[in-house]
Amino acid sequence: MKVVALVGGVGGARFLLGVKAALGMPALGEGDGGSPHEVTAVVNIGDDVWMHGLRVCPDLDTCMYTLGDGIDTEKGWGRVGETWSVKEELAAYGAEPSWFGLGDRDIATHLVRSRMLRAGYPLSAVTEALCDRWRPGVRLLPVSDDRVETHVAIEDPATGEPTAVHFQEWWVRHRAEPAAGAIVPVGAEEASLAPGVAEAISGADVVLVAPSNPVVSVGTLLAVPGFREALRSTAAPVVGVSPIIGGRPLRGMADACLTAIGVETSAEAVGRLYGSRAESADGVLDAWLVHTGDTADVPGVAVRDVPLLMSDVDATAEMARAAFDAAGLSVPEGS
Amino acid sequence: MKVVALVGGVGGARFLLGVKAALGMPALGEGDGGSPHEVTAVVNIGDDVWMHGLRVCPDLDTCMYTLGDGIDTEKGWGRVGETWSVKEELAAYGAEPSWFGLGDRDIATHLVRSRMLRAGYPLSAVTEALCDRWRPGVRLLPVSDDRVETHVAIEDPATGEPTAVHFQEWWVRHRAEPAAGAIVPVGAEEASLAPGVAEAISGADVVLVAPSNPVVSVGTLLAVPGFREALRSTAAPVVGVSPIIGGRPLRGMADACLTAIGVETSAEAVGRLYGSRAESADGVLDAWLVHTGDTADVPGVAVRDVPLLMSDVDATAEMARAAFDAAGLSVPEGS
Repeated sequence: MKVVALVGGVGGARFLLGVKAALGMPALGEGDGGSPHEVTAVVNIGDDVWMHGLRVCPDLDTCMYTLGDGIDTEKGWGRVGETWSVKEELAAYGAEPSWFGLGDRDIATHLVRSRMLRAGYPLSAVTEALCDRWRPGVRLLPVSDDRVETHVAIEDPATGEPTAVHFQEWWVRHRAEPAAGAIVPVGAEEASLAPGVAEAISGADVVLVAPSNPVVSVGTLLAVPGFREALRSTAAPVVGVSPIIGGRPLRGMADACLTAIGVETSAEAVGRLYGSRAESADGVLDAWLVHTGDTADVPGVAVRDVPLLMSDVDATAEMARAAFDAAGLSVPEGS
Repeated sequence: MKVVALVGGVGGARFLLGVKAALGMPALGEGDGGSPHEVTAVVNIGDDVWMHGLRVCPDLDTCMYTLGDGIDTEKGWGRVGETWSVKEELAAYGAEPSWFGLGDRDIATHLVRSRMLRAGYPLSAVTEALCDRWRPGVRLLPVSDDRVETHVAIEDPATGEPTAVHFQEWWVRHRAEPAAGAIVPVGAEEASLAPGVAEAISGADVVLVAPSNPVVSVGTLLAVPGFREALRSTAAPVVGVSPIIGGRPLRGMADACLTAIGVETSAEAVGRLYGSRAESADGVLDAWLVHTGDTADVPGVAVRDVPLLMSDVDATAEMARAAFDAAGLSVPEGS
């Protein structure tokens, strides 16, 4: 079976663990274990940022470290066994930004990536090279090799003046507290899909929309020209998984992002934001999974309620199986 | 008193500690302590290299860390309390070169430097910015803001074929074991002196040549157009300190470098290599200090023998006082 998953960072990475488990693939750092199944993750790049001269790709790295058994499982991001010498020294130099902490182990990844990017390799090729080490067992594809960075219009917390900051500054430095007047994927209009993205979607048996942030993760994917069209034209069913449970985001501060674009924080509203392939001019969903007890009316989309808490890999695998089922596919347990 | 010292890395940094002590200046990380004296170190850049996309300047950093109380005093280079997470990770990625170990704390310096260089600041300005933190109490001036890198012609140890490698590869990777057919300061011919170098030399009361490597440290300084002329035309006496004691290098593998350029490993031969300002067409010395018991006949140069072992700061300060004395200057003890 060929599965494409649209993912952001922490939630997307955990979702991928469940997809692999549902397909009977080895989970951590053992490649695909010779599985007959193929999983391609199309990963958000809107969080990517240059920091201290290093190209940092939080979502790609979270997926890579999680599936490669290098993640700090407590935090859900960053490297296990991390040390912080470089960060301490950068602070001693007064190097800005001081609010974004890069761990020493993590920095090695950014050094390898930045050097390859500066040598002219596209991000997709760099990601593939990094994955030679991590063997995630899932093909990790950045949605684009072009620079697309999410910027957020806010009032400067210090001066009250209108300003725009990189998503990371809003999210990490300001904890998404200043209300976002707009969230803009800068560069998206001129971006192209990375090699393999359109092909993976058109050749898929099923496309899954992970319970990632609908605005700054999935929304950024959808902003790249050709991506929405690829979803709308594939023969594969497209099944979304709600990141909103009981009116609250599964994790992170997705509600702040939804509010910024005028969408209610509910499973129904996010389902409608994605929309129906059949009945909406630009919709992308065939089916929409909401959490047990939640309801959603999304015209033209088959809605099911199933347990959506990714409390462990088994629960997440069960959720992935429900998504396959909603797509009309059945995967034998332990296949 | 205005002192200019020509220095390389470890030996040069220790020599500077002695110069500061002889002048009664605070030694470590306390700036110049309001001293009436000014010490300018013109530092070799021939060892500088891009590694993993970072600009590494070993001699500038050794001087900065030593005088700023950040050096690993056991090794004589690198940071005290260093950690090695990035190096381990780079090795796990198979990132080359693997033979040059960058410590985590050290990497922060290279990140700040590389970012500033890429933003267009010249190395001299970057060095000044880094020294804002370290307060070495000595003005550290790279000899040039241009790229001058020492390359070494050798036979490839693996294939036996003639090749040329960066100095660091010869020195660190191969421990200077393959005989050097030539040692070339690549880029020197097109380089200019960094701002302040010529002015420091012409305005000095004395110029000291530290007991640094005569070929790849002092030799690289002399290869930059205008440097030799500045030394020859200054009104200040120029006093050299022999790095060769009893026919052996004080430290490092300077003999391998001298052999490469056809110069004997002796205090006399190095004195003659530098030559007399008065009697040689391109000489730079007025006086030459050799170690107690060594002799040297350098036509036109006043030779004295004094203890030259930099065993501690007091011994090195005594050596610096001997150099001032040879220049006809006297610095009251504890001035």
